Amino acid sequence: MKNYILTPGPTPIPDFVREALSRPIIHHRTPQFQQILKEAMEGLKYIFQTKETVYIISSSGTGAMEAAVANVASPGDKVIVVEGGKFGERWREIAASYGMEVISIQVPWGQAVAPEEIESALKANPEAKAIFITHCETSTGIDTDVESIAKITSASDTLLVVDAISSMGVSPLLMDEWGVDVVVSGSQKGLMLPPGLAFIALSKRAWKWVEASKSGRYYLDLRKYRKAGEKPDTPYTSAVSLIVALREVVNYYKSNGIENMWNRYRRMAEATRAGVKAMGLELFATAPSNGVTAVKVPDGIDGVKFVKTMRDEYGVTMAGGQAQLKGKIFRMAHMGWIEEFDIIVGLSCIEVVLKKMGYKVKDGAIAAAEAVLFA
Amino acid sequence: MKNYILTPGPTPIPDFVREALSRPIIHHRTPQFQQILKEAMEGLKYIFQTKETVYIISSSGTGAMEAAVANVASPGDKVIVVEGGKFGERWREIAASYGMEVISIQVPWGQAVAPEEIESALKANPEAKAIFITHCETSTGIDTDVESIAKITSASDTLLVVDAISSMGVSPLLMDEWGVDVVVSGSQKGLMLPPGLAFIALSKRAWKWVEASKSGRYYLDLRKYRKAGEKPDTPYTSAVSLIVALREVVNYYKSNGIENMWNRYRRMAEATRAGVKAMGLELFATAPSNGVTAVKVPDGIDGVKFVKTMRDEYGVTMAGGQAQLKGKIFRMAHMGWIEEFDIIVGLSCIEVVLKKMGYKVKDGAIAAAEAVLFA
Repeated sequence: MKNYILTPGPTPIPDFVREALSRPIIHHRTPQFQQILKEAMEGLKYIFQTKETVYIISSSGTGAMEAAVANVASPGDKVIVVEGGKFGERWREIAASYGMEVISIQVPWGQAVAPEEIESALKANPEAKAIFITHCETSTGIDTDVESIAKITSASDTLLVVDAISSMGVSPLLMDEWGVDVVVSGSQKGLMLPPGLAFIALSKRAWKWVEASKSGRYYLDLRKYRKAGEKPDTPYTSAVSLIVALREVVNYYKSNGIENMWNRYRRMAEATRAGVKAMGLELFATAPSNGVTAVKVPDGIDGVKFVKTMRDEYGVTMAGGQAQLKGKIFRMAHMGWIEEFDIIVGLSCIEVVLKKMGYKVKDGAIAAAEAVLFA
Repeated sequence: MKNYILTPGPTPIPDFVREALSRPIIHHRTPQFQQILKEAMEGLKYIFQTKETVYIISSSGTGAMEAAVANVASPGDKVIVVEGGKFGERWREIAASYGMEVISIQVPWGQAVAPEEIESALKANPEAKAIFITHCETSTGIDTDVESIAKITSASDTLLVVDAISSMGVSPLLMDEWGVDVVVSGSQKGLMLPPGLAFIALSKRAWKWVEASKSGRYYLDLRKYRKAGEKPDTPYTSAVSLIVALREVVNYYKSNGIENMWNRYRRMAEATRAGVKAMGLELFATAPSNGVTAVKVPDGIDGVKFVKTMRDEYGVTMAGGQAQLKGKIFRMAHMGWIEEFDIIVGLSCIEVVLKKMGYKVKDGAIAAAEAVLFA
């Protein structure tokens, strides 16, 4: 059975990445590898839309989230987090584990934070060191209006830290132009690599806070990454194979043009939304992201069984709901090495399995998607 | 030009690892991946020689070192470190970065710590939470007598934490039988994988200290790994491709038998030592490890140029000396996907380049090595 991965990370990896991963190993402290690392880091600047250096950490995306928290604030400092899903909660958990005082903006799951709420929180807590938000909240499929929020934080002394783990390369995020202070991401989402690398870039004003941080840290101490990055090098042994493959991905982005990549993912997201709505299904997120579409499981259908059936009987892997959303939503991702016909496959599988499970699927989903995809 | 990697990490990776790395990605929360993770974790127990669970962290080896420090002690606690090289120093740096009080046993680089020194340090500091040692000190090629040290620590209330990053699977280390409390390792040394995975196992008494630790930590919080490990799962997205390849490596170890692997690495180390001594060169380490042989650069030879020439003109990559040993030693590794004829290639390159640089190499190195390798 052929397998189709339509999950919000890991995402499918291209053949050119698989080929790069299978190359013989090279030593990480050689001119040969240094050149590869340099190209990869330069390419990341393009994808992050920043002039600042983007550092590579060998860890899952959570490692870069923790690096952001631990390096811009200290135990006892006040920080603000926006919690509207599993990954917003993670910001709170990390900050709390470092003994920071956490002000939490609670947002109902499936809704986006209103920039006005950020403004109020900043007014009430002007001494907050940083505010932590999630660009694409993968657990709910929400897209956050980073640009509007950055306008507010830029005018304050509070840093804006953005989890762009599942939005980087998928949705527009103009770090420098918008004035975002810290952006973190990971390898296994839009960047179409296996999991294992995390990325972080900091604005000049964010670096000042890094110097002042008193958090205990070593592996995730960004001062070490900055020093090593000058060569460029990584402070600890680089995950060589993944970085060799990363260079291929950044070159792919450069040759396609990032605006074209964003547009393509947007078109695939729109096609997915058009398709599921044509079936008679409802979207879960009020401001849906370009990386993943969360759909409400219709009444009378067992959501856990639905996702399991697609995977085990049809080879199409999507994600179910997490935590309080278990069984209530399913999530079809359209990022990574995904093309137009993958969207058709995903929608086809949804309608086939829903019909099989007794749901009365409305006609026209594939035609609706085709109209968007191949316009 | 063919390339030969004889560096102490990354080490060459076998074709079966390269093939595993190049497979299509699978999702990390599927029965298919869970089975792979289970086999990999079971196999690690065999390689670590322990009944305890061996946890997999997506990080370089340093991440697992930090996990050990942060989880067994708290800021303000007293800990003991043995510093006889770059990686012993790293233990001190990590503990200091967490605000621990560090008692340092200084050992001249190239010498092994005497178990009696450990005994005295423990007597003088019975309240020390843990003592941190390095099994194979990669920077000097020293092999530490872990078994004798474990006898001493087992009879005390101080935990023994061993950095086995470049000894695991190469030199005997019987975690349970010897009574070692914490063992950390990494993927890119004896385990013949690319860098990117770290491993850690803890004794039952070590877990008690983990519960009590007050260090700020999240990504490296071992309580999260223990909870996820029950399934088994990892608390954050697994580095899927590396773990798929890890399963192949643990199966390779199981089918060969770990004693045979240890013996083979020992024989290759002995052959290397016999070869370099036959050339008239001197070993740097007084207690040489089975993973890497450190050799003094003879008088009148530029050590940096020597290593560079082997690499750039002959395709044979070895390591030079680090920090205070820069230019003074070179290090030929014999671990990972290394076989008998790789030792011959390494020794041949050493004698060819030394001759070219004007050193009067004594005859008989290859014959001396062959006598050990093919006895």
